[in-house]
Order: sequence, then C-alpha cells, then structure tokens
Amino acid sequence: MAVLGATGKVGLEYLEMLKEHPWFRVVDVTGNTKVGMKLGEVAPDLPTRLRSLEIKESSPSKIDADLVFSPLPTAVASETESKFAEAGFKVITDASPHRMDSDAPLIIPELNPEHLKLIESRLKSGKGFIVATPNCTTVGLAITLKPLDDSFGVRKVVMTSFQALSGAGYPGVPSLDIEDNVIPFISGEEEKVPAETNKLLGKQVGGKEIKPSSIEIFCSCNRVAVIDGHLESVYLESERVIDNPRAVLETFIGEPQRLKLPSAPSQPIIVRDENDRPQPRLDRMAGNGMSTVVGRIRSGGGRSGKKVLQYHLLTHNTIRGAAGGAILTAELLAKQYDIAG
Amino acid sequence: MAVLGATGKVGLEYLEMLKEHPWFRVVDVTGNTKVGMKLGEVAPDLPTRLRSLEIKESSPSKIDADLVFSPLPTAVASETESKFAEAGFKVITDASPHRMDSDAPLIIPELNPEHLKLIESRLKSGKGFIVATPNCTTVGLAITLKPLDDSFGVRKVVMTSFQALSGAGYPGVPSLDIEDNVIPFISGEEEKVPAETNKLLGKQVGGKEIKPSSIEIFCSCNRVAVIDGHLESVYLESERVIDNPRAVLETFIGEPQRLKLPSAPSQPIIVRDENDRPQPRLDRMAGNGMSTVVGRIRSGGGRSGKKVLQYHLLTHNTIRGAAGGAILTAELLAKQYDIAG
Amino acid sequence: MAVLGATGKVGLEYLEMLKEHPWFRVVDVTGNTKVGMKLGEVAPDLPTRLRSLEIKESSPSKIDADLVFSPLPTAVASETESKFAEAGFKVITDASPHRMDSDAPLIIPELNPEHLKLIESRLKSGKGFIVATPNCTTVGLAITLKPLDDSFGVRKVVMTSFQALSGAGYPGVPSLDIEDNVIPFISGEEEKVPAETNKLLGKQVGGKEIKPSSIEIFCSCNRVAVIDGHLESVYLESERVIDNPRAVLETFIGEPQRLKLPSAPSQPIIVRDENDRPQPRLDRMAGNGMSTVVGRIRSGGGRSGKKVLQYHLLTHNTIRGAAGGAILTAELLAKQYDIAG
Amino acid sequence: MAVLGATGKVGLEYLEMLKEHPWFRVVDVTGNTKVGMKLGEVAPDLPTRLRSLEIKESSPSKIDADLVFSPLPTAVASETESKFAEAGFKVITDASPHRMDSDAPLIIPELNPEHLKLIESRLKSGKGFIVATPNCTTVGLAITLKPLDDSFGVRKVVMTSFQALSGAGYPGVPSLDIEDNVIPFISGEEEKVPAETNKLLGKQVGGKEIKPSSIEIFCSCNRVAVIDGHLESVYLESERVIDNPRAVLETFIGEPQRLKLPSAPSQPIIVRDENDRPQPRLDRMAGNGMSTVVGRIRSGGGRSGKKVLQYHLLTHNTIRGAAGGAILTAELLAKQYDIAG
Repeated sequence: MAVLGATGKVGLEYLEMLKEHPWFRVVDVTGNTKVGMKLGEVAPDLPTRLRSLEIKESSPSKIDADLVFSPLPTAVASETESKFAEAGFKVITDASPHRMDSDAPLIIPELNPEHLKLIESRLKSGKGFIVATPNCTTVGLAITLKPLDDSFGVRKVVMTSFQALSGAGYPGVPSLDIEDNVIPFISGEEEKVPAETNKLLGKQVGGKEIKPSSIEIFCSCNRVAVIDGHLESVYLESERVIDNPRAVLETFIGEPQRLKLPSAPSQPIIVRDENDRPQPRLDRMAGNGMSTVVGRIRSGGGRSGKKVLQYHLLTHNTIRGAAGGAILTAELLAKQYDIAG
Repeated sequence: MAVLGATGKVGLEYLEMLKEHPWFRVVDVTGNTKVGMKLGEVAPDLPTRLRSLEIKESSPSKIDADLVFSPLPTAVASETESKFAEAGFKVITDASPHRMDSDAPLIIPELNPEHLKLIESRLKSGKGFIVATPNCTTVGLAITLKPLDDSFGVRKVVMTSFQALSGAGYPGVPSLDIEDNVIPFISGEEEKVPAETNKLLGKQVGGKEIKPSSIEIFCSCNRVAVIDGHLESVYLESERVIDNPRAVLETFIGEPQRLKLPSAPSQPIIVRDENDRPQPRLDRMAGNGMSTVVGRIRSGGGRSGKKVLQYHLLTHNTIRGAAGGAILTAELLAKQYDIAG
Repeated sequence: MAVLGATGKVGLEYLEMLKEHPWFRVVDVTGNTKVGMKLGEVAPDLPTRLRSLEIKESSPSKIDADLVFSPLPTAVASETESKFAEAGFKVITDASPHRMDSDAPLIIPELNPEHLKLIESRLKSGKGFIVATPNCTTVGLAITLKPLDDSFGVRKVVMTSFQALSGAGYPGVPSLDIEDNVIPFISGEEEKVPAETNKLLGKQVGGKEIKPSSIEIFCSCNRVAVIDGHLESVYLESERVIDNPRAVLETFIGEPQRLKLPSAPSQPIIVRDENDRPQPRLDRMAGNGMSTVVGRIRSGGGRSGKKVLQYHLLTHNTIRGAAGGAILTAELLAKQYDIAG
Repeated sequence: MAVLGATGKVGLEYLEMLKEHPWFRVVDVTGNTKVGMKLGEVAPDLPTRLRSLEIKESSPSKIDADLVFSPLPTAVASETESKFAEAGFKVITDASPHRMDSDAPLIIPELNPEHLKLIESRLKSGKGFIVATPNCTTVGLAITLKPLDDSFGVRKVVMTSFQALSGAGYPGVPSLDIEDNVIPFISGEEEKVPAETNKLLGKQVGGKEIKPSSIEIFCSCNRVAVIDGHLESVYLESERVIDNPRAVLETFIGEPQRLKLPSAPSQPIIVRDENDRPQPRLDRMAGNGMSTVVGRIRSGGGRSGKKVLQYHLLTHNTIRGAAGGAILTAELLAKQYDIAG
C-alpha cells in the first residue's frame, strides 16, 4: 500500500491513521519537493518503520504497491491518478477531479457499496481503476439523506453550511479574514454538493452505469472560525409523510457495520436530543470522527405539513470527510474483493 | 422624551444615538438598581446635560415626557410598557412582549408605515399606546422580503442565521461555549421570525386590524463567534418568475427616505456584487449600521426554475435591529403626526 | 474516597479522572443544589457504579470516607474544608483559602514532598488535616523554578501570563469581553503566584514549619481567547552563572517519577527546541496534561550577562493545575504513608 | 508627494489617511504588479482624483514629487529607498532596513525631533535622505519610556508583548495557527525593539551622530488572536525613586502637540485607571489610533522597593505603528524645515 503526496497535511493524516492499521501496511510514500529524503525528516513522530521510508516521486514506475491512497492537491490529482490507474494500480482518492467520472465509483461505504460493481470487471482482470470519495461537505449530508430518502422519498433539500477552517487546507484562510467574521462563500462547493450527493444516492444500473438520483439540492456554503467539523443546517421536503425520522436516522447501518470493518463506527449516525446540539467542538470526535451527529430534528409546520423536515448535522471534515472516509472505502474494497492492502 | 432602562447595555446605546439628535431631547431616564444616582455615575462619557439627569424608577408618575423608548428586558417589559401606555404615554419598544398584540403596530418604517393607523385614533384622542419594533433577526429578512414580495410574490422562505454575540446581551454567551464552536440554537428565535415577518408584511384592514401575510417561513437560528452583525442565508420560492432581483432590492426605498428622516439611511438595502460579501465585520456599519447589505444573489436552478432565489443578507443587530430601528420609528411617528419628541 | 462539590465543572473532571483509578474508589459525592438526586441524573456519561451514587450534603456526618477531594468554590471552601479536617478527614484541596495556612502543606509532588511532614503527626494520630495544591498559574512557574533554583539560585522573576478561559470557571468570561481582545487583569492572581511559589520552594524546618523562599517575583496576569492551557513568559535573574539550563529543566524528576505514581508523567518538564513552542493548542496535552512544556530558552544578553534567563512555559490549567495535580498529591500521600484511598 | 507600494495593504492605509490631508497631496503612486493600471481599479473607494492616478514603477525617474512615503515590503525597501534618496528624494519609511543606519534618523516626533539634525545639511543642500520610523512594537514602549527615563532614569526593562494579527501583514498568520492558541514567537522582533528603543532615546551629538541610550531591554514577543492593537506588559527598574509615574506619563507632550501638527493626538499617552485596561478592542482607537493607552500602573514591591514599575500599554500597530506615525513624522519635517508636501 502506498500514500501519494504523503508529506502534505492530509497525507500525514493518512500515515497517522494507517500506522497501526490491522490490514494495511504503508510500504511506499511519494512527495513533491522532498523526494529522496527519509520520511522521518519530515515527520519525526511517526513509528520507526515509517520514518525510514524514502520519499519517492509520484510516478507509477517507482511504486511497489497494489493499492494507493491519493490525497493529492486538485491541481495534480487529475493527471497523476489517471497515470496510476492506467499502470494497473487501485487508486482510492479524496481529491475532486475524478469524482464525477462515469467509470469511477464515488463511494461512502455505508451508502452505496454496490457502486463498486463499476470497477468489478477491471478488478477481476487485474486492471487499475479509480475509486473516489466525496467532498467533505457532501459526506454528512449524503449520509443523513440516504435513510431518509429510502423511507420517505426526498424531493428537495436546502442546505446551509458552517464549514471549518481545516477544510481550506494549510495555510488556508488568513486569520485577518475570519476573526470576528463569517465568509459567506467557498469556491466550487455549492456545485459539488448537489452533483455528488445525487451520484452517491444514484442507482447502479446493469453493472455499468450510475443513474443519479434527482433530488433538487440548493446549497449555501460558508466558512466560520472553527478548527474542525462541518456543521450543516438542513431543510428538506419529501414525497411521503415523514414519520419518526429520529428512529430512521439513528438505526441506520450499512455494510461497514455488518462487516465490522476496522474503521467503521458502530453508528454512522448518532442522534442527540438536547436542543443545542450538534456543536462542532463537542461532537466532532463522535465515533472517533467517523460518525455524523444529528440534532434539532423537527418536522411539520407550514402548509407543507408532514412532508417537511429540518435538522442539523455535523461531520468531521478531515476524518470522515477525507482520510478516514478513504480508508474505510479501501477496507470495504479489500473485504468485498479479498484484496490485501 | 424618556428612556426606560437607560442604564442597561441597550439603554446606553439609545442615549449615545440620541445625544445629538436634531428632534429628540432626553429629559428623563429610568433604571432598576441605580435609582437616585446621577446618570453620569453610570455613564461618565455622556455629554454634561445627560450626565446630570437623575435615574428614576420606571414608573409613569415619575416621568415628565410624552414619548418613551423602552429597551427593557423581556421579563419586565410587558407590564411596565402596559402601565405607561395606560397612563397616556407613547411607548416605542424593541422588547418582544407586545409585538404580536393586535392593537400594537409592529413597525419597520420603510416597510409598513401605514400600520401606524392602528394607533391613530388613540393618538388623536391623546391616549397612550405601544408601537413595537421587530426582533433583530426578523429585521433584515423582512426588509429584503418586502420588495421581493411586492414584485414576485413570496410563497416560501428557508432562512438560516449566523447571529452575533451581542444579540444575546451582556454577559450573554460564555466564551467557553463559543470559542472554536457554533451553537445551533437560539431560544424562541425560530418562532418569532415567521410570526413577526408575516405581521410586518401584512395588510392594514380598515384602520383597525392587520391581516398577516401568509408566507411559509422555516428558520434555523445559530450563534457564531462574531461581535456584531446578523448574517442570514436565504432561500425563497415565489409565485411569479423572478426577474432582475438585484435591481428590485437595490432601488427599494420607503417613507423614511422620502421624508428624509434624520436616522434614515439613503439606501435601506445595499447590494454587493463580490462573490464573498456580505461579511459581518466588513459590512455591518453600512449606512451607519442602518442599511441591510445583500449579496450572493442567485436565482434559478433545479426544477423550480426561475421561481427560486438565494441570497445572503447582513443587518447590524444592535443598531438597525434595536436602538436605531426604534429611533427611526419614533422619527416616522413624529413626522407623520407632527409630534415633538 | 469522596469528592465534595462533585457536580460542578471541576468536580466532574475529578470523577472523570478517578473513574478508572487503580488505587482510589469514589464512594461518596456531595453537591449543593442537587442533594438527593442520583449522580447519573447530572452526569449521564459516567460508569454505572458512579451514576448510582446519591448526591449528599457537604457535611462530614454524611460522608463515609477517609480521604476527600475538595474542588469547592472559594466562597464555601474555607469553612467546609475546615469542618471536614476537624472531623478527622484527610482533605486534599485545589481551592485557595487554606493554601497559605501555616499548618497546611502546599504541595506539588515533584517539588516539595517533604512538606507533608507538617501533617505527619496528625496523620499518625488519626487526626484530620488539609493538604492544598497551588493556583493553576503558580504550578508551571514553580515546577520550572525548582530545578533552576537548585542549580543556579533564582533571585528575581518577572512573569507575564497568557491564561486560558477555563481558568475562570463556567460561565466565566463573557464572549463579548474576549473576542478580538485581551483582558490585562485577573483578580488576585498577581498576589497569589509570588506567595505560593515562595512557600512551595520553601524549606521545611524541624518538621513543623515552612520557611518560605525569598525570590522576588513580579507578575502580570492576562486572559486570552484560548480554551485550555496557561502560557507564561518568564524572565529571571540568578545568583550564579546559568549553564545549560535546557538540561537542568529536561532531566528534572521528583518523587512521583521515582515512585511511579499512577498519574505521574514520565517527565515533569518537556523541552521543545522549535523557536515557536510551546503553544497552548499544540502542547497542552503533553504527558496527558500533566507535563509542563518549556521552550524558547535563551540566556545571557545585556549587562547581566550569564545570570539572566528567559523562557516560555505551558501548563494545562485544569489538569496539572487542578484535578490532576490534586490526584497526584493524593497518590503521593497514599504511597508515602500507606493510606488506602 | 508620492506613495511607493501604494497598492499594498499598508499603502492603501496611507492613501486613506492622506486623502483629505490639509498639507500633503498625493500626486504619484507606485506599485509592483499593477503598473500602468489606474489606482481606481485597485481601490475603487478612493476619491475621484486619487482613482485617476496611474500606477507607476517604483523608480525615481518616474516620480514627480519631492517627498515619498515608503511602506515597501522589507525585501525591496532597502535598495529602492536608497535609490530614491540618492536621486534627491526625501524618503519617509516605516520599513526596517534603514532604521539602524547611522545617517538615518529614527523618529517618533514626540520623542526625538532633534535627531532630524542628522539630515539637516543634506536637506539644506537639496540632497535626498531617509528618515525612518520604528517597528510597531517599539513605538508604544519607547513613547512611555521617554518621560519615565527623563524623570527617573530607566535602567532595565522586561517587556512581554501580545501582538495583533495585522502586524504580520496580509495574508499573514493562518487562522489554523492562531485559533484557540497563542504563538510565542515573532521573527526578529525581540532584537529590533531593544536596538530601536535605545536609538530613539539616544542623544544627538554635535549634529552628526546619535549616541544610543543604554537601557537593558529584554523582550518576549507573542502573537494573539486580536485584529489590531499591540498590548505590552512592561516591568522596569529605575536609577531613582519612582514618584507619581501616572502624572509623568499623562502630562507628557512633545513637539507635535506644541506645533499642533494635523495628525498629532492631543495626548500622546492616555492613562486609564480601571484595573482591566488597556484592552486592544476598547482602546486601540484612542486619539484616532495615535495615542498610546497606559493602565495598571503599579510601583514598588520586593526588595527593589520604589525603583520598580509595572504597567501595560496599548498602541495601534497599523496607525501610530505604521502609516500614522510616518505621516506625523512628515508633518514634523515639513513644519520644522518649511517643506511643502
């Protein structure tokens, strides 16, 4: 198993989460500016074995692994990931360029494990492929919409986000911009969330294609002075009367829970009943950062009656929304298709 | 003119705004715990004339004025304001208890000056009355909905707020609760905004009654680590196709602008075209804190096509949303009915 | 073992740290307003055994324990702690009232374990007593001064603090006071630190008395917008030439390390060599919050030459500076005098 | 009068302060990346006359002015400023490279106007020169030390700073670094403050040379999450007994006050008597950002008795500490030597 771009902020988070992984063993790492150095010169706190790895170029010919994680920056991810896939590697990426590719499954393991069929024939014939994970703002929304859509048929969603600083990477947001302030815009985000969510909730048709869902999704994406944890305020309209949405959310589980995958939280969705939760600082580490916390569930009101639902959700953007989500996806792939990491 | 509860945080803001007012002259102030002291002992930075005023009890018999401003805390506002009105005073309040009273006009001077007819007969016969101003979160929303409703017919609104710390008063929100955090709940707010907005946009019927508007309004009210300025993210659906909403918002003016009232901003709504505005810290003082700043206007999308609009708005919660709004209301009243302050 | 005032913020931290303690078992808890309720009604996340404890009055006759921890608020600590001591209890307190009592040892286990001799005769004759732990701002300063004083003789200290919000308790500092701000004053703190530090570094004379050290200590105590972790900037002058202060600090250990007490960090002082450490958010959990992190050590300069030292230190104010420090003190007492908790 | 680097953050602050200046008229501006554009394309909110200026290269041959302000970044300031001086321009700079040059006066107009004699002969012979203003952290310290040194003889200073984000420029400090944190290091700052302060308080000898003062100054420079306003905690030791330091500080005035220079505050030092002032957010705009606010004055204590003084001071780092300080210096130069801006 290899980690591309391992010396960046997110790359280091992968190494941290993988250092004691029961299935996966990092045998190669790549970087951009520090090629030839030992990983330990960049990350002195890693275990000895990892520190001794040499940082290589992000080039398929240099890497001795089957599966690669790609937390590469958007600018280079597109081409590099394609090269690796063409060279026969299994690429799991949390970068955005290939998410909407028709031959790349976009996966949240609890939601749409069957989308992996898209790459099944390539897998069996030993060819490479790309499996993508969604944007950090999409993840929590899609996780909560899945059981609600299954139960009540979601027709329309209005989502307003309160996104954490770490979502912008490092150095990211200047402190002078965000202190005593909110920034009511995050580039590209309001387009990604609807497209990705509808792909995630789409139907896999005949093993070859994903027919996206057709929920109308309106987003407003905003940056707030919070370190980690994306909070989202959701309004939705359903096809059918909404009954006991709390139970529908709280009892939702998926393949990772059934298969007891190592990084799977026991509950993908945790419901809090206090009237002022979820809160980023208090709830972001729920389920080791892998659970989405939902609160303030309220339905009904207005002429729309029992076909309207409002709630807040919180997801840890750099764990479930990045490295953790990708690792869980790799675990699902490994388990379903009996691949060693 | 008197200010009740003048020694509280909001009371002092009234005194600050009134100290050089061209029409109104503060001749009496009341307080709770500091009765008998000179105002200057509490507020040493006020002009000499104000500093020398004695702090009196909030009792009608002690006050030698015609018009009183009431920034009293909710707990005492209800009874005290009623007593003053019964004793013949003209009460302008930004407290909540009487806002929904059927005989109390709820006023934003640019929106519904005709609602003052509700108190016209009492005014002419020398009787007292209460005129209320809305909640600080309602104000900006209602100001922007008014021209949009007149032009396109607003059917449904989903509003998510990012509210400032000063909205909770002092000491208000503990720093341990809000540092590196968002609190997704503000007590009572999500109920007040729909009710007040529909009253503000309602029709005055036969001089006696307000028939509220019937817009479906869904709110999510949240506290963020910002000192002043309520930011709101708005989604709305209209009856008619939305065409050039930017112009509709920007060119909106009302009676205060036509009458050139002293506290009226030249534009009730200022539109910013940058993709990351309005921002609380940068925009809250627009129009001396009396203008609502709108940005990120985007319409269309989804099946709803041209009958959907999204935007952000920002209103200074302690100026337009409290003292400033009440003073502008008093100016309107004074001008329309030729009352000296 | 009992915890007085267990339902307050600090009380709950004691319960959290004690819930799996290898030596101590909480058998009684007291509270103020919630007497008669089960602890689980206040703290639903505690283990079953603790949740089932009944909250009792803070009265000696109600408590069935030998040792009591007292995180009581200052206002009630003085009298309540005295009552418990008179009734024969061993009281360990992190409250301030008894810290400077001549018959109460003030203890940082690594610094002055021999001060416990003050209570030895009472202990042996089965009488009660009070053992105090220092102010959260004193702790880190005293821990770093001890080895420096032993090696070089500290003559004068100028300390400026950057103290965390949690040091003010809850609700504590209003967010409106600290957002985009620093508050350059904390009541009482600048007097406590010199007095307590000199008592801590004092000599135990003939088993009966503490002769305080006589370091001149000048403090400036300030509140900053940080959740946990008191940062202090220290300047000091010594009697003797300062040589290799880094080694003196880093190699310092005390009785807790030698006795391998359960809550003892392996290093009381951790030295960081980066030029921008220690930082509150990055370093406060060093040694599980029990280590003091020192950085930016620089000596020499000016006419004072090699008898001047400057450094920064960081101590977790609610762990080492409160509950953790008191529990470590109890562990020392238990080990030295063979007491069961 | 010209402003070099006028399109940067500090450059725009100069334009803002100069746009209605009674003496100085900006006739030329220079920039780096935007040469050839109109100033109005970069700064649409400036008055018409300024908006129409063309942005030129920072080259002496392009500039038609006598006096130039240089808020250039350190990297280019050294060479560019020298070129302008050699070409006969009067350069006023707030950049650091030339501050310690033996032939460049370092000026705070209230402190050392006589240091301008260093450039008097060049001025009279029509040659160019550089006049520097100090680092934003030096300014407030030096202003308060001047009257204290004159009255009591300052021997030693220990200063710990709480510096604002704007001191690091834009984008400056990443929000991820400073949220819930303090950064205990600012590169170069701890060396500049002692050197500059001693030059500022130095004696001008025979019109040719500055003999620096010899106060021992120990600094600890720290970044906190505050937008504007550097707070400093000061400890000092004096030669003589300190008597009524409050009066000494409060009554201090200098040439700018005597000459009634346009940007001079009526009081260079404002003393606050509350025990929790100065605070950055509340006090930074004192005297339009040109006054230094001092509080928490306390003397005596320890063996050092009445020869020790402690206090806090606050100075607006981008006004008095940058553009405002440079403009006041230009005003002094213009008045003393009868130069038109």
